[in-house]
Amino acid sequence: MAESSEKARKYSRDHAERFRHELLEFLRFPSLSGDPAHADDVRRTADWLAAHLHALGLQNAKALPTSGHPVVYGEWMGAGPDKPTVLVYGHYDVVPAVLEDGWDSPPFEPVEKSGKIYARGATDDKGQLFIHVKALESYLEANGGAPVNVKLLIEGEEEISSPNLAPFIKANLDMLKADVCVISDSSMRTMNEPAVTHSLRGMTYLQIEIQGPKDDLHSGFWGGATHNPALALVEILGKLYNPDNTVAVPGFYDDVVQLTAQEREMIAKNPLTEQQFKDATGVPATWGDSKYTIRERVSARPTLEINGLWSGYSGPGPKTIIPAKAGAKLSSRLVANQDPEKIFQLLKKHIESIAPPTVKVNVSLVTKGKPALIPFDLPEMQAAARAYQKGWGKAPVFTRGGGSIPIVADIYDMMKIPVVMMGYGLDSDGLHAANEHYSVEMFHRGIETAIVYLKELAEMASRRKALDKTGARAA
Amino acid sequence: MAESSEKARKYSRDHAERFRHELLEFLRFPSLSGDPAHADDVRRTADWLAAHLHALGLQNAKALPTSGHPVVYGEWMGAGPDKPTVLVYGHYDVVPAVLEDGWDSPPFEPVEKSGKIYARGATDDKGQLFIHVKALESYLEANGGAPVNVKLLIEGEEEISSPNLAPFIKANLDMLKADVCVISDSSMRTMNEPAVTHSLRGMTYLQIEIQGPKDDLHSGFWGGATHNPALALVEILGKLYNPDNTVAVPGFYDDVVQLTAQEREMIAKNPLTEQQFKDATGVPATWGDSKYTIRERVSARPTLEINGLWSGYSGPGPKTIIPAKAGAKLSSRLVANQDPEKIFQLLKKHIESIAPPTVKVNVSLVTKGKPALIPFDLPEMQAAARAYQKGWGKAPVFTRGGGSIPIVADIYDMMKIPVVMMGYGLDSDGLHAANEHYSVEMFHRGIETAIVYLKELAEMASRRKALDKTGARAA
Repeated sequence: MAESSEKARKYSRDHAERFRHELLEFLRFPSLSGDPAHADDVRRTADWLAAHLHALGLQNAKALPTSGHPVVYGEWMGAGPDKPTVLVYGHYDVVPAVLEDGWDSPPFEPVEKSGKIYARGATDDKGQLFIHVKALESYLEANGGAPVNVKLLIEGEEEISSPNLAPFIKANLDMLKADVCVISDSSMRTMNEPAVTHSLRGMTYLQIEIQGPKDDLHSGFWGGATHNPALALVEILGKLYNPDNTVAVPGFYDDVVQLTAQEREMIAKNPLTEQQFKDATGVPATWGDSKYTIRERVSARPTLEINGLWSGYSGPGPKTIIPAKAGAKLSSRLVANQDPEKIFQLLKKHIESIAPPTVKVNVSLVTKGKPALIPFDLPEMQAAARAYQKGWGKAPVFTRGGGSIPIVADIYDMMKIPVVMMGYGLDSDGLHAANEHYSVEMFHRGIETAIVYLKELAEMASRRKALDKTGARAA
Repeated sequence: MAESSEKARKYSRDHAERFRHELLEFLRFPSLSGDPAHADDVRRTADWLAAHLHALGLQNAKALPTSGHPVVYGEWMGAGPDKPTVLVYGHYDVVPAVLEDGWDSPPFEPVEKSGKIYARGATDDKGQLFIHVKALESYLEANGGAPVNVKLLIEGEEEISSPNLAPFIKANLDMLKADVCVISDSSMRTMNEPAVTHSLRGMTYLQIEIQGPKDDLHSGFWGGATHNPALALVEILGKLYNPDNTVAVPGFYDDVVQLTAQEREMIAKNPLTEQQFKDATGVPATWGDSKYTIRERVSARPTLEINGLWSGYSGPGPKTIIPAKAGAKLSSRLVANQDPEKIFQLLKKHIESIAPPTVKVNVSLVTKGKPALIPFDLPEMQAAARAYQKGWGKAPVFTRGGGSIPIVADIYDMMKIPVVMMGYGLDSDGLHAANEHYSVEMFHRGIETAIVYLKELAEMASRRKALDKTGARAA
């Protein structure tokens, strides 16, 4: 008779087509957390997901209210109190997407094409979180139970830096109590290079708004004696960078934990060459702080990016105005131990100090999140390595992630449990961009690896218990 | 019995309400020449105007095709070949406008409120050109004829720098033959300060487009080693200006005809104070090249403005991308003797020379137009001064205009006739901005002044003829 994880894996293969169909249904919801106009869509997504978990037989499956968008929760505690409990974290919200951004098909009308599912959220994070839902379903359906207890915590505000999740966790520490947290919201370079992420960058996201004249002005009548707000913005933004491409804001790098020679050596084992970078992104050449390798720059060093710029007229043909307003969205990716609030204050203070008296300048915080750095020699991390070896077919590398999952630092701090980031995405999935997609093969191999990971965690706990007993006898 | 111009003035007063009603009808057309989506609207506007001229009894009233938008033509030659012919130039096209720009009412649903007509095009230039149509109608209806011959040339591409009008004039020099050209497409500071404009700035309008990665990138995964196109744009734009607010492009000022002490003295008679500038525009402080007065900066000196900036995300909340593209619209207001094409080449060459190898930069010309400088001691100019004295009630000042009417230089060059700019707008009309409006009083006083100007031109011609005969006898 086949072992339970084998039966669950077989079940997942037998029901692969239905699983994909359900994912497509999930992807149809335009759950844009950052746009108030989509608040209802976000709520409908949460309701759909909670109903789905309930239908699978999970207990307490609900969309729970927060001050912002709901958190979806559900649990299966049938393994019993002597078995470990796994907390799966994911997010059902997505970043904005409109067809005009260059999509080949509408971003919320998912299509499967050449082994890929195209939709906003396909890889970030609906497709990846759904892996854990389907892994648990496979155990329950194939065996009537799973080897460990599982709790699902799926939020709806990750893309706006999770303003309400830390308070939610703090208020529900008993309900959420677990031995390990697993998150699939990261990626590997190729299908053959699985990765467990042990570090993430934090974020400070801000907005600059400049007002010059009270209305747009005719550039002929007023041009020459009006400080153009777009020019004022250009002048301010230009002063935020040094000629060597580092950030020119005083104090910005003060709290950065410098990379040790040993860490740099480990990072060098997973290189990112100029050519690889160019092939993946299409840029004519790489850029940045030449004191660091490309891989270090995109994962272990802080940044300051312009995410958006706007002023005046951008339609076809000419319009001869001096714009009344100009604005920019800016965000810093932060590394340990930079504090997001402190970085915001440094940026705000610096921008205000260089703002000219000819315009009005306003700097406001949009969102923020802490960076995280987790030891990769924990047993829960090593169990993940074995799960990849057996479920995926290849042992993973441990890497630093350049992105931000703000809640990782919070869970690690508040719950005192390891956070294991098993990313089932590909670097080339185009997340946050047009034509975001998710590999069908990735989805199914992910489910099988997640199935094996639950078994590995159960066995790890058994070994630990046996070791404890031996220890007790010896005492 | 009342004299013919008096009868025409009375007629214009008796029919004032209908004249306004017809103007409102004219303003309903969204004749945006710069947006291909509005090409049909532009054509419909031309057809309406041609039909209107035909109905007034003008000959050859037609919307004539060009390579772009049609030219509307119509003539009344009933004064006979021994009388002078006046060519009236105007434009029926407008710059873009949408309610979201801050309009209190839809820009193409004109409303009359507190003595002002609110609509895009109200002052620039539908309202002003309509003055001449109604002045001619008043003569024809009240007297059965006018004291001079009148030709109307109303184009539909002024706001995109009249790409097809110079060729049209060149091809129709016989049809358009006239003794003087009159244009109402400029403004005075207050109702009590009528102005005749004797100089206009030219224009070079260009667009910069920058491409970095082939698609928007996730700022976490790629940030730190990608040259953000928005930053590249900021760096390039920043290098186009000197710290003293002058243009840093080599050769930019080379051909500028320097102001003489006498000209500066004349300009100083029509000052623009810091406080007046602030009150009119709402800026916290003025800006510019401190070697020149505010009035000189906005009329007699060239500029380089950013008319639009765009990159990445500008919606609500955060979006953590590195934008694939960034762009800007830039325009220079030029003074005699700067050549628009030469200035474009200087700008393009300079921008390309400072473009970094990490992005692709494209510079393209949008539109261009020559500056104009016309002697103000010509008899046709002095006739305009008398027309204001009698029709408006106050003699005008002769001023330099900061705006551009590209065709002024072309008419002056190609037809060798004086171009008299009798502006019936107010500086505060908000042209090219939200809530553009036109003073009802201005409209009606403009019609009466235009009526008197036709009479003054006829009398000027009679005097000249008498003088010629005297001269012939004496010879």
